[in-house]
Amino acid sequence: MKAVILLSGGLDSSTVLYQAKADGCECYAISFDYQQRHRRELDSAKKIAESGGVAEHHVVNFDLRLWGGSALTDNQIDLPSDRSLAEMSENIPITYVPARNTIFMSFALAYAEALNASRVYIGVNALDYSGYPDCRSDYIQAMQEVYRLGTKQGRQGEAIAIISPLIEMKKTEIIQLGNSLGVPWEETWSCYAGGEKACGVCDSCRLRLAAFQDLGLSDPLPYVQRMG
Amino acid sequence: MKAVILLSGGLDSSTVLYQAKADGCECYAISFDYQQRHRRELDSAKKIAESGGVAEHHVVNFDLRLWGGSALTDNQIDLPSDRSLAEMSENIPITYVPARNTIFMSFALAYAEALNASRVYIGVNALDYSGYPDCRSDYIQAMQEVYRLGTKQGRQGEAIAIISPLIEMKKTEIIQLGNSLGVPWEETWSCYAGGEKACGVCDSCRLRLAAFQDLGLSDPLPYVQRMG
Repeated sequence: MKAVILLSGGLDSSTVLYQAKADGCECYAISFDYQQRHRRELDSAKKIAESGGVAEHHVVNFDLRLWGGSALTDNQIDLPSDRSLAEMSENIPITYVPARNTIFMSFALAYAEALNASRVYIGVNALDYSGYPDCRSDYIQAMQEVYRLGTKQGRQGEAIAIISPLIEMKKTEIIQLGNSLGVPWEETWSCYAGGEKACGVCDSCRLRLAAFQDLGLSDPLPYVQRMG
Repeated sequence: MKAVILLSGGLDSSTVLYQAKADGCECYAISFDYQQRHRRELDSAKKIAESGGVAEHHVVNFDLRLWGGSALTDNQIDLPSDRSLAEMSENIPITYVPARNTIFMSFALAYAEALNASRVYIGVNALDYSGYPDCRSDYIQAMQEVYRLGTKQGRQGEAIAIISPLIEMKKTEIIQLGNSLGVPWEETWSCYAGGEKACGVCDSCRLRLAAFQDLGLSDPLPYVQRMG
């Protein structure tokens, strides 16, 4: 069974790739260079695609700086670094990129249909990132309907299924799952900043570090600093 | 009221731009260079955007040849030229590009949300192109749900509305509408081939020529040949 995996190179999508392999899929990875400031994650995506033994890995290029609207694509906007973990879950943050997951899932759908694949895997998570509208299950269901009605494959046979295995999991549970699957954490990248080492203070770093700490584990990734 | 217009440079999307203006919208056009063989249409999109007086026009670049799967992105596949108009409506043709409208509408959504626009206009048509799964109204409704659930704007206020004024119109009706709105047909481009003049024999040329002929009008666009 062929599956397309949306692979950012982060902790979540890397775990999803390893889950798809464990599910018995032949994996085809897709990543996006949208001129995000943390394009460093693409190096990780390439490493993880290789470690994970994918059949093929495409990086799709386009420029989401064209119209701006997000701290992740506009160097003029400061990345948030002082919000509590609780605050992260409550509001839509300035790191939200308009319609980003919709764009990603559209390309994944095109790739999957061209491959005649059965599944698209995505590492969205509704708990840690509940501020993001396009990480919730009602959104994923709406996108599934687009997958069904918007393709030849969905109209004439069985629709490509969207699999989001992490959607209801806590970050600690994702790390436990990844550990059981053998995900090489040192090859992943979660930091929103584009440095050599992970910054340790952006929302994404702090969520990750806090989860490793809660499990009594050490994150093998090098950080500039680790918030206590 | 701001609106994003999906503008290919063809007869349908050009009419839609003029309709959006007639509806009182401030228009922002978006076009796509996806390495389609008929990239000639982008010149038309630029001309029409100018004639139509848009506030801004973005051309988004990406490469849909990466995974192939369509005669429009693969020069090795012959364009169909011998199908009857009836056959065109019945089957999904090899000019179908997997998930193309979903990709286009995803970028339009991103642009619209960044602009704080209220509407996205798209010139899909369910009659002449009923073979295409992503030109039908049930698909547009599914995409509308994605617009509602997948954005900050849709979750917190009123969703960006998808307007598809041509969806139930015949090609002859679209031409009549365009005539009443003053669309400069000579600046538009419908041909799937990438020549200097429109080929006159591909599906898209024949649909267009037949409609002008049915109305007793002459299409001002230069053609290599006009099928009688």
